[in-house]
Amino acid sequence: MKVLILGGAGMVGRNLALRLVADGALGGQPVEELTLFDVVPADVQGSGRTRVVAKTGDISDRATVDALVAERPEVIFHLAAVVSGEAEADFDKGYRINLDGTRHLFEAIRALGDYHPRVVYTSSIAVFGAPFPEAIGDEFLTAPMTSYGTQKMIGELLLNDYSRRGIFDGVGIRLPTIVVRPGKPNKAASGFFSGIIREPLAGMDALLPVDDDVMHWVASPASATGFLLHAATMDTAPLGARRCLTMPGLAITVGEMVAALGEVAGPEAVARIRREPDQTIRGIVAGWPRNFDAARAAEFGFTADASFQDIIRAHIRDTAAAG
Amino acid sequence: MKVLILGGAGMVGRNLALRLVADGALGGQPVEELTLFDVVPADVQGSGRTRVVAKTGDISDRATVDALVAERPEVIFHLAAVVSGEAEADFDKGYRINLDGTRHLFEAIRALGDYHPRVVYTSSIAVFGAPFPEAIGDEFLTAPMTSYGTQKMIGELLLNDYSRRGIFDGVGIRLPTIVVRPGKPNKAASGFFSGIIREPLAGMDALLPVDDDVMHWVASPASATGFLLHAATMDTAPLGARRCLTMPGLAITVGEMVAALGEVAGPEAVARIRREPDQTIRGIVAGWPRNFDAARAAEFGFTADASFQDIIRAHIRDTAAAG
Repeated sequence: MKVLILGGAGMVGRNLALRLVADGALGGQPVEELTLFDVVPADVQGSGRTRVVAKTGDISDRATVDALVAERPEVIFHLAAVVSGEAEADFDKGYRINLDGTRHLFEAIRALGDYHPRVVYTSSIAVFGAPFPEAIGDEFLTAPMTSYGTQKMIGELLLNDYSRRGIFDGVGIRLPTIVVRPGKPNKAASGFFSGIIREPLAGMDALLPVDDDVMHWVASPASATGFLLHAATMDTAPLGARRCLTMPGLAITVGEMVAALGEVAGPEAVARIRREPDQTIRGIVAGWPRNFDAARAAEFGFTADASFQDIIRAHIRDTAAAG
Repeated sequence: MKVLILGGAGMVGRNLALRLVADGALGGQPVEELTLFDVVPADVQGSGRTRVVAKTGDISDRATVDALVAERPEVIFHLAAVVSGEAEADFDKGYRINLDGTRHLFEAIRALGDYHPRVVYTSSIAVFGAPFPEAIGDEFLTAPMTSYGTQKMIGELLLNDYSRRGIFDGVGIRLPTIVVRPGKPNKAASGFFSGIIREPLAGMDALLPVDDDVMHWVASPASATGFLLHAATMDTAPLGARRCLTMPGLAITVGEMVAALGEVAGPEAVARIRREPDQTIRGIVAGWPRNFDAARAAEFGFTADASFQDIIRAHIRDTAAAG
């Protein structure tokens, strides 16, 4: 089979690609060709079983999307997006990529008429907006408070409608914040959730800009890959008209994260965390969802990390494996 | 002030126009110019105080929308839409008018940069999809089950985001089913809710295709006009980020409607109703919302009809006044 990943050079897309190459298969079927599309070339090597093709371009160009879809991949992972901060800073770019780009994909599929792939779409918990209940359930209003959340939610609505009409077979998954992100610190407001684990484990200091009682909804990079693979292979019939699901995760406070770090890596790791309150980040984080009741995802077989200690240990293993 | 009604020739738009001309004012300010835009010319006469301009065209043409917006009306009512049945039958037309047309309006406003009108957008209870709770509250998930509902919900999301960014000052109102619609029977699946009142009062037979225990959410044409006027003049600050509201209405069963008709117009009117079950219409109606808890709309000053008897009496008065 052929598989296409839009956004194949990003952290989530690259992890998924590495896993598909390692497995050489998806849902029991061999993956002969894996196309990784992004604005920059993805650096993933193929194997004897799976040929990897890296392509670059912009999904806001309809002809580019048409050419990708013309290959008729059986499964399309649509992870390509302008992230939250950029979509807020650049109104036009956010709508062009996140809304028009998504419509281009869906319309390119429709235009072929006799082609009905599985489409896995990554949405976000940014589709929800305050005020929140104690835990956000599957029937809670989606009221985004950013342009990014708005664009992701429009994608969800389109995915539901195109799937209902049989144009393709869509599954939307709302990812928790991914922790521990590998690599260097980035400027995302959520970056410290990874930083307070990653930096101390690497013998570096980390800044903690919020209070210990801040609660957040997180999952590991490996869980994100697992969600995507399950969404690509699950039976979609029981989903009915509601094809977008909040993924399971851990609702955990910053204080609990720090305690877990101490348990796994000792007090010297914890001592690397410097509490430096930042009113801007505090304000942003205060508007984020804290906790979910992801019952539907659990019902349909999505599973997440058992504990934050497990997430830390997996990061340590992955870092060691990456050299 | 200048006022623009997109969809000014439809039942709701025309009633609104008649009321604005009769009042000669909106929110205490004189309306000097009222532009009625639709695919067909609106037949509303102006007065000494209010000049009425009827224009025709298609909102899926961006230049047409730009020209309307260039007049810088202080208030824009956006009621233009391809209705539910047509949007379901003609995929392209529904998305072109209901989604692209709405974006054209919002983008035409943004393009002017220094122009920030009040925009009143009519959405629909079709943004909700089964399974429903006993009464749909203001925090219940919007999960449309038609392309029309999908397009209306996307409009709501865009309205919220453009308003949050200060591009315009939007209010979205989800209208109940309007009963009693004047005029001839139409082919809408909801048509019988008006027909079983309107036809008997006119001495004609009416078909009732569903059971007496079917419950529905209704408001009168005069209430719809009242909702629009209130949305155009209310203080929007307390709405926060959630600018779209389910309008108040009456949750009433078909049996209660028939009993109210008997109370107002006597048993000879009721005898004009012929029960003729229609499995197709039964099926469609079974998927519709039955009842709402429209608490936010009430909190922000929207009011609906006190009783179904009042709705019937208002229809009798309006019919007599129209000759």
